[in-house]
Amino acid sequence: MATEANSVPHPTLISGIHNRWHPDIPPIATVKPGQTFKIECVDWTGAQIGNNDTSDDVKNVDLTKVHNLSGPIAVEGAEPGDCLVVDILDIKPFDKMPWGYTGIFELENGGGLFAREFNSKAAKAIWDINGVYATSRHIPGVRFAGVTHPGLIGTAPSVELLSTWNKREGELIAAHVNSVPPVAFPPEPIGAYVGQALPSDVRERIAREGARTIPGREHGGNCDRLIDFLRRGSRCYFPVFVEGANLSVGDLHFSQGDVSMSFCGAIEMAGIITFSTSVIKGGVEKFALKQPIFLPSPVDPMYSQKLVFEGLSVDIHGDGKQYNMDATVAYKQAALNAIAYLMKIGYNLLLSAAPVESHVGAIVDSPNACVTLAIPTGIFEHDILPHPDGLAKKDFGQCAIRSDGVV
Amino acid sequence: MATEANSVPHPTLISGIHNRWHPDIPPIATVKPGQTFKIECVDWTGAQIGNNDTSDDVKNVDLTKVHNLSGPIAVEGAEPGDCLVVDILDIKPFDKMPWGYTGIFELENGGGLFAREFNSKAAKAIWDINGVYATSRHIPGVRFAGVTHPGLIGTAPSVELLSTWNKREGELIAAHVNSVPPVAFPPEPIGAYVGQALPSDVRERIAREGARTIPGREHGGNCDRLIDFLRRGSRCYFPVFVEGANLSVGDLHFSQGDVSMSFCGAIEMAGIITFSTSVIKGGVEKFALKQPIFLPSPVDPMYSQKLVFEGLSVDIHGDGKQYNMDATVAYKQAALNAIAYLMKIGYNLLLSAAPVESHVGAIVDSPNACVTLAIPTGIFEHDILPHPDGLAKKDFGQCAIRSDGVV
Amino acid sequence: MATEANSVPHPTLISGIHNRWHPDIPPIATVKPGQTFKIECVDWTGAQIGNNDTSDDVKNVDLTKVHNLSGPIAVEGAEPGDCLVVDILDIKPFDKMPWGYTGIFELENGGGLFAREFNSKAAKAIWDINGVYATSRHIPGVRFAGVTHPGLIGTAPSVELLSTWNKREGELIAAHVNSVPPVAFPPEPIGAYVGQALPSDVRERIAREGARTIPGREHGGNCDRLIDFLRRGSRCYFPVFVEGANLSVGDLHFSQGDVSMSFCGAIEMAGIITFSTSVIKGGVEKFALKQPIFLPSPVDPMYSQKLVFEGLSVDIHGDGKQYNMDATVAYKQAALNAIAYLMKIGYNLLLSAAPVESHVGAIVDSPNACVTLAIPTGIFEHDILPHPDGLAKKDFGQCAIRSDGVV
Amino acid sequence: MATEANSVPHPTLISGIHNRWHPDIPPIATVKPGQTFKIECVDWTGAQIGNNDTSDDVKNVDLTKVHNLSGPIAVEGAEPGDCLVVDILDIKPFDKMPWGYTGIFELENGGGLFAREFNSKAAKAIWDINGVYATSRHIPGVRFAGVTHPGLIGTAPSVELLSTWNKREGELIAAHVNSVPPVAFPPEPIGAYVGQALPSDVRERIAREGARTIPGREHGGNCDRLIDFLRRGSRCYFPVFVEGANLSVGDLHFSQGDVSMSFCGAIEMAGIITFSTSVIKGGVEKFALKQPIFLPSPVDPMYSQKLVFEGLSVDIHGDGKQYNMDATVAYKQAALNAIAYLMKIGYNLLLSAAPVESHVGAIVDSPNACVTLAIPTGIFEHDILPHPDGLAKKDFGQCAIRSDGVV
Repeated sequence: MATEANSVPHPTLISGIHNRWHPDIPPIATVKPGQTFKIECVDWTGAQIGNNDTSDDVKNVDLTKVHNLSGPIAVEGAEPGDCLVVDILDIKPFDKMPWGYTGIFELENGGGLFAREFNSKAAKAIWDINGVYATSRHIPGVRFAGVTHPGLIGTAPSVELLSTWNKREGELIAAHVNSVPPVAFPPEPIGAYVGQALPSDVRERIAREGARTIPGREHGGNCDRLIDFLRRGSRCYFPVFVEGANLSVGDLHFSQGDVSMSFCGAIEMAGIITFSTSVIKGGVEKFALKQPIFLPSPVDPMYSQKLVFEGLSVDIHGDGKQYNMDATVAYKQAALNAIAYLMKIGYNLLLSAAPVESHVGAIVDSPNACVTLAIPTGIFEHDILPHPDGLAKKDFGQCAIRSDGVV
Repeated sequence: MATEANSVPHPTLISGIHNRWHPDIPPIATVKPGQTFKIECVDWTGAQIGNNDTSDDVKNVDLTKVHNLSGPIAVEGAEPGDCLVVDILDIKPFDKMPWGYTGIFELENGGGLFAREFNSKAAKAIWDINGVYATSRHIPGVRFAGVTHPGLIGTAPSVELLSTWNKREGELIAAHVNSVPPVAFPPEPIGAYVGQALPSDVRERIAREGARTIPGREHGGNCDRLIDFLRRGSRCYFPVFVEGANLSVGDLHFSQGDVSMSFCGAIEMAGIITFSTSVIKGGVEKFALKQPIFLPSPVDPMYSQKLVFEGLSVDIHGDGKQYNMDATVAYKQAALNAIAYLMKIGYNLLLSAAPVESHVGAIVDSPNACVTLAIPTGIFEHDILPHPDGLAKKDFGQCAIRSDGVV
Repeated sequence: MATEANSVPHPTLISGIHNRWHPDIPPIATVKPGQTFKIECVDWTGAQIGNNDTSDDVKNVDLTKVHNLSGPIAVEGAEPGDCLVVDILDIKPFDKMPWGYTGIFELENGGGLFAREFNSKAAKAIWDINGVYATSRHIPGVRFAGVTHPGLIGTAPSVELLSTWNKREGELIAAHVNSVPPVAFPPEPIGAYVGQALPSDVRERIAREGARTIPGREHGGNCDRLIDFLRRGSRCYFPVFVEGANLSVGDLHFSQGDVSMSFCGAIEMAGIITFSTSVIKGGVEKFALKQPIFLPSPVDPMYSQKLVFEGLSVDIHGDGKQYNMDATVAYKQAALNAIAYLMKIGYNLLLSAAPVESHVGAIVDSPNACVTLAIPTGIFEHDILPHPDGLAKKDFGQCAIRSDGVV
Repeated sequence: MATEANSVPHPTLISGIHNRWHPDIPPIATVKPGQTFKIECVDWTGAQIGNNDTSDDVKNVDLTKVHNLSGPIAVEGAEPGDCLVVDILDIKPFDKMPWGYTGIFELENGGGLFAREFNSKAAKAIWDINGVYATSRHIPGVRFAGVTHPGLIGTAPSVELLSTWNKREGELIAAHVNSVPPVAFPPEPIGAYVGQALPSDVRERIAREGARTIPGREHGGNCDRLIDFLRRGSRCYFPVFVEGANLSVGDLHFSQGDVSMSFCGAIEMAGIITFSTSVIKGGVEKFALKQPIFLPSPVDPMYSQKLVFEGLSVDIHGDGKQYNMDATVAYKQAALNAIAYLMKIGYNLLLSAAPVESHVGAIVDSPNACVTLAIPTGIFEHDILPHPDGLAKKDFGQCAIRSDGVV
């Protein structure tokens, strides 16, 4: 019979919040290879954004605190040079918080890929998470199945790797001293946080040297870029740099397009991620593992029909200029083309949260780098395809905006 | 009964080779909206590469002649500002030529994305096309279903659009006068070709002003970038710039990865493409049609299991350098990571022809642009997944190389 | 900010167990159209089967108690003739019970499709549910992503519909009085259960008239047959026969093949199902709704490579007999062919729980009805494809068997 | 250079029409394992049906001539007990005949699954094949990508196997002497045909003993049932019964649903099929190969959204009767439910030619066998989903009917 004695839940590990990558952050727990375990995660901002109808919380968000990570988790037997195999078994919001949000950040506080083009003011959309689907009272007429994934996941860097990061990024910063926005973010003691009891010299060293969480690096890290290769059901192969591997994770997303268009472009949520791990000895050498590799999940929202926009590396601000094989410009162009199309229907904020796919096209056919952006038509309740009669514009309301009404 | 009287083949249009984009190239034929028709295409080099076992033809290829286009085809009723809907109904090699090729070009003659990293010498692989599959005597152990598509397709530019192209690309060239390889290619009378009887002043004007076929532009053009959105079964929406639209097409591919890694990275072939068209009046305005948009085909080779590599914008030549959000560097990195992995198994030239998918990851998480590259495991006859015991290296022979043995 | 005030979980409704279909079972709760809600379900046997390593609980299971249903739930505004739209938003095991089971039932107690062929003795396999995946200590070497779904779901029958069922099934039983196993199951007061306080005459009427839960009928009901059209993310359109529709659900499965080969062939589990509903007035007439129709979920485990076996309506017991267009014989044949193949590798119980697909082939090409059965190769840790050297047999251990050792 | 010398087409084998299965039909050609070759096929009726707008040719079709097969082809080295691996590389209509047809046959001449329900009169629809798509002037508003496949393919039976077939089918016929339609078809000299010069005693023996082509059997044969497992790109494993295997093929289809609902339910066409083969020695024993097994193609039309109908084994002629686990009745019910739905939109003949999928549901939940039928919504130019307002009926014209106007 099914009894309490033979029904044991998978253990949930106390989370251990921190917001820097550093080898001296001690593991909060140790797991055995093969064990299934869960980790609770706050959202990336540490619960600064609420389920409400103004964007003031986005406007005033304190970004020195990001990204909140849970961990590290040590894996028995993992040593530098090994490969840590991580199975992402499930990701879900907390039962008591079945919602997430997408934000457009102020140009002065967070910005985003198009912050300058649009002189961005804070806005947001709240998404209700109903099982596999998200819908939003702020973006009616759309429902889609999410590709839940962690925004940040990585092993701890070694002393040497951390030093390499700080050196090379420091040189880039030094070469672009007055750049706005900054080209990179050096270690910053202000706001550095490790939610454990630590000797003060260790705490200070972590704050002084710890790598910021914004870019992805050789250990994984910020994985906005890896979209659906991290969705539930995926297997990840991380290089191990320290004893125990020391895996941390955070910034859970219910869904995200291929690129964070609005700085915080995913449907951000707090929740629980379920893992199991194994260790392949010497895996870094065996697999030429300079960076993580991935086996994507067989569980995939399938939207077979897509409408595809392309962008070239020309004319990004209406200046008619020819850029030289610049994939970033081409990507912006593709996104702007898609936005122009969707605005004819009545949509705006949608793109960054929807399961959009972006492909790098040719970067050898000088001078035009080319990028495409594919929007699944099945996420809309109505037909968005090109019709001989043109596109019917509807009123899809408006995102949550600032309480002072500035948009 | 089935008789000759009630069995009429779709018409095949005489091809009309040309290798520049210009409004003054007259249509070689006119079709009605709704009509199904076929166009014969030579390969992009004009049959300079043969089905043999040395790469001398690649080494000595005359690149002033490229790309060979077939057309233009005028569509009744199409006018500037309209949208030309083109259905790509089928693409196949000539019955008498069931083969294609992938080439690595010499650094001094063609080059390619990695030409300098590897000091490229000419090499090639011949692929046998057996129905939906390609196999190669030069790359054993691999078989894959192709995503056949045209490498170049586009409507003719208007006088004004051609002028815009020449102006903006000329300015870029002027700003990078000594760049190797050149940043862009200005109009070049040498090698310009239009296979029609034309008044000499028209022929000279086309040669003098005609846009080169290397980059993609607002009318379509070189579409290496658009990979599977142009595969058979896809629907394309082109802006119309001249009376009749004047559609041209060429550079048929049996298959191609997301990026031309080896300059001529697809499986290049000669063959026949089948189209039908329709016209949406005023479509440019109706759909905010700055560039073509696409409805991809429902007919898609489905390889669900993929192994995914990522690249960051750091350390491209082993220099440890931090690049500033450079998606091209990140792409190269992803490709090099994949190549390092595949070399442990014994492969090299494969990647550019295989149905590899590349995604642009985050380009907002300064300073690391991130790009991923996904290889379908189902195209290999043997297991390429990471195993605890490592990867077994096999001898997969060698591509066709130069007859002087230089590699 | 994210606070308790703005974080409200979806309500979980007290379940209300019953095991007959009858119009007089009162709703245990009423929901509004559009509301998301959860229902807790015991497993179909009412927790008689345990997470242990003998099959004695299967051998001794009390089948008069099945199937345990949760509900009914009334939907505001639903009336006879309407269509009740039910969105299946999520299905998961209880956190404290991350496991399920597959059972082979004794010929004398439950039987199954092949009970007589194999003179079945009780056996079972316990599956650990780790997020999206199931693995079993009793069937090593296999891991697959589940297609979670409810085994039973339906609206309550009206007095008239219940009467129709009892009449037509009674006539069938009368025409096959001594059939073993019985051709159908008449109402049976013994074991009938409704977990609510009811007047004794109502309770007796339900026990006396209530339809058994074994077959599917016009209202839905036992939906083993509907496999992945009921998986999470699917939308179902049920005819409404009584005021409020009175939806009941139970018999949750983590996974199941297309046919219950071993009587209880799915991975059976207890857990929680999340729904939302809406009502389409007059939907029965609008959609010619004789039985439910379904819009399957876009969220689908994708195993693209499959190995396919076929069966014909001949020679089912080795008798060489020609059956007359009998799809059931053809299905058994296909399954036996697949079992013969898998036994060469070392597997046995697997088929009924794996995400196997079965298609009805021709039933017009007399005399051979034909059925196919497709097994996804990606669920195995090792290669099961036909190789020139044949198939290597491994020891995959054994299911849990009876404690007396009889197999 | 690409020259005639290095461009050699795959050989096309002279077809060799025959319409019986018999070991004494000599191979018309011999191929080597690994060789790619093509076979030309007439349509199954031998070109009796024309591209025109009346159904008189269907009404008067001579069915004693069917099915026309091309072959046999001997494969070097294949012996009884081996496994013949057949790769189906491509299938296409003749260039000069880009069309096919779907027919409803007269109850008195061919019939079909629903012939009696509807008292069928001859009707047909002509489909234009435009590359990967079919459209019909007789069924407007629908376009779909075909799953081209051969309707019949198989190896030659041995003397013993042929004898087994004739014995078991003869016994069935003997047990149902007056059945209409007949339960099976015995050898029939009238209409038997082998398009080769043969000694008269051999020709007579073939006519007297040769198995009819209507059902599928252990060697393959009529494979309507196998739908997309035979589409281009698929690999088939056939048991070999005679020296050389002697493969024959015919009855090419551009597309077909899971079951031939209208007797000749596919889009029938004449055309060319491309094969390559290999031999696995002793494969029958190695793979427990009682019947063919299949590895389906990775090239698959992908229509992710489907509307699903179910059928139960009750009430097939409106008689309210309870059938006993009859999957054929359940299938008819599912089809009738789908037809009732589509008639509300205005369609009728469509179902049998469209890429419909049918699944066998439970055949253990007595007394109701259950079958589902899934229609891809993407093949319709307009929305067919259930809407709160109901379904709009349109006029989709009418199939080609008899010239005497009887329908």
